[in-house]
Amino acid sequence: MSEYNVAIVGATGAVGTRMIKMVEQSKLHVKAIKMLASKHSAGTKVKFRGQEVTVEETTPDSFTGIDLALFSAGGSVSKQYAPEAIKRGAVVIDNTSAFRMDPDVPLVVPEVNAEALQQHHGLIANPNCSTIQMVMALEPIREKYGLSRVIVTTLQAVSGAGNRAIKETLDESRAYLDGKEYTPEVLPVKGDKKHYQQAFNVLPQIDVFEDDGYTHEEWKMIHETKKIMCGGDMNSDDIQVTATCSRVPVPVAHSESIYFEVLDKNATVEGIQDAIKNFDGDVLQDDPANQIYPQPINAAGKKETFIGRIRPDLENKGSFHLWNVSDNLLKGAAWNSVEIAEYLDEMDLLRV
Amino acid sequence: MSEYNVAIVGATGAVGTRMIKMVEQSKLHVKAIKMLASKHSAGTKVKFRGQEVTVEETTPDSFTGIDLALFSAGGSVSKQYAPEAIKRGAVVIDNTSAFRMDPDVPLVVPEVNAEALQQHHGLIANPNCSTIQMVMALEPIREKYGLSRVIVTTLQAVSGAGNRAIKETLDESRAYLDGKEYTPEVLPVKGDKKHYQQAFNVLPQIDVFEDDGYTHEEWKMIHETKKIMCGGDMNSDDIQVTATCSRVPVPVAHSESIYFEVLDKNATVEGIQDAIKNFDGDVLQDDPANQIYPQPINAAGKKETFIGRIRPDLENKGSFHLWNVSDNLLKGAAWNSVEIAEYLDEMDLLRV
Repeated sequence: MSEYNVAIVGATGAVGTRMIKMVEQSKLHVKAIKMLASKHSAGTKVKFRGQEVTVEETTPDSFTGIDLALFSAGGSVSKQYAPEAIKRGAVVIDNTSAFRMDPDVPLVVPEVNAEALQQHHGLIANPNCSTIQMVMALEPIREKYGLSRVIVTTLQAVSGAGNRAIKETLDESRAYLDGKEYTPEVLPVKGDKKHYQQAFNVLPQIDVFEDDGYTHEEWKMIHETKKIMCGGDMNSDDIQVTATCSRVPVPVAHSESIYFEVLDKNATVEGIQDAIKNFDGDVLQDDPANQIYPQPINAAGKKETFIGRIRPDLENKGSFHLWNVSDNLLKGAAWNSVEIAEYLDEMDLLRV
Repeated sequence: MSEYNVAIVGATGAVGTRMIKMVEQSKLHVKAIKMLASKHSAGTKVKFRGQEVTVEETTPDSFTGIDLALFSAGGSVSKQYAPEAIKRGAVVIDNTSAFRMDPDVPLVVPEVNAEALQQHHGLIANPNCSTIQMVMALEPIREKYGLSRVIVTTLQAVSGAGNRAIKETLDESRAYLDGKEYTPEVLPVKGDKKHYQQAFNVLPQIDVFEDDGYTHEEWKMIHETKKIMCGGDMNSDDIQVTATCSRVPVPVAHSESIYFEVLDKNATVEGIQDAIKNFDGDVLQDDPANQIYPQPINAAGKKETFIGRIRPDLENKGSFHLWNVSDNLLKGAAWNSVEIAEYLDEMDLLRV
């Protein structure tokens, strides 16, 4: 059994703090752990398996002797330091969008396409949170019935925009209830021109707008899903995907309303339910008579993807709806990253 | 110019209080107004054009001498008293689901199908809130390009479940922020077995479940849309409609993510924008470069339907997305009802 020196980059962020917990709970044998962040956060103390660890500023030499580096500190940090980590012999699992569409970089949800890990060259990309939980719901269906078309609307949690977005939404909610003014500075997108009230409101914008009217979040859902489910063939028309992404005033766990068409027109709700029930990491919560369906407050803090409200389009045979909820910081980010590391370890691929 | 004796049934409810405001602002000439409610609310004082009016208990004789009765006190009240009002010579505009699917009852959104008013026999039904704002967005598109298919996901406000649901959500939000326990008793559906936290949560249930796994709200969106847009032919397959309805922690104004296919495959985003811009009651808010898109906090208190984020499905010519927000208590209920009365008056149909 190999033992690893692990580095967590972005250890103080919304995902980074979960990354620490997920490593603690994982099957990985950790020899030593290094907590890395920006200069601003250096000196902060965090706990790992009961021991206090001081957060250090990230530099190229931080990665000397590191076997596994888990990045979650923004795309620019990954672009700057992931190559440095790889150069020094680390395998990098990157939770940002920096390298996801690079054809040489596997984009992996282990339950869906672990075989893509075989092709890694030191860097594996963790997909976008909203993509991960969607492919977790759709892969058992694709395996059983084939999948031709996906139309998704997301209702995403504010934690997808980081700890500052959570704090802003909660502070803003209290101000709203107290009848006080509040000036948002983070949501919908930290770096965009305008900021809007998210408390008691819905914002149909996640990430910046592309020229074609789609947001970058929607672009990610479309293209990452194709890369993961179509074996990396970016020109694949095998599965058509289109998306609308919105943000709702929920702290943790994204909801997705997914409409999909399968190839096998004899597919049934019961058959889909069975496929989901038997798929690792998925939990079926689908009992309308007893008002059982996935909800963010129940999914928060859990590693699984929860799926319910499976029903046929009454006018189009082979088309169905489902409702899908998962913790965007766990399966959508930290847990999926650590799970990739576990798979690499089991597949003897945790080496450059 | 005719003058009318008007009765508002359910005058103290979330919709009823807006109904009073909408009558105040309307072009209707009101001779006298009668405020009706349950025995429980009788004696409450409400204001109409600066004058205090005492709410009376609804009885069959309440409708003697009434020309126009606006009902919004629940389906059972409408079933009991609408026939009594009609018998006494009133025209009833009913905001409940009691008579909507009756083939002899026009189901009307004036901008969309005012011609259906010609066939009334004393009773006109006001459609469900989520249906109204959807057909307001789709009708200009149908008129210009033809419409073959609609797939909608709603993000509905809690006020759709009445004043108690608003209070519950706000009280529950404060309890959540204070780290206190709160036991919900209203949402998702007052009369259903289980009640769930709506604050900082999403509930994929509005109204009760049907045997086929759809909620009754989803059923309403499907069948009411067909009745309104297909000229009352309930067997029409001209427009396929399917829906997923969810509730989000927003006090007022529903959001809808609508995917639709048109018949004319040369339809363009600009053409759709123009059609919406020129349609009475619709406001285009569609400027992604400047982060302009419809939001509940901006739509609340307004009579219009706000539409934006219009963009093509990149893989299916003739298919598009749009994002649609409107005040569910105004255009979705009170304003649409009063607007029906205005049309009846103009069309000289405000008589049995």
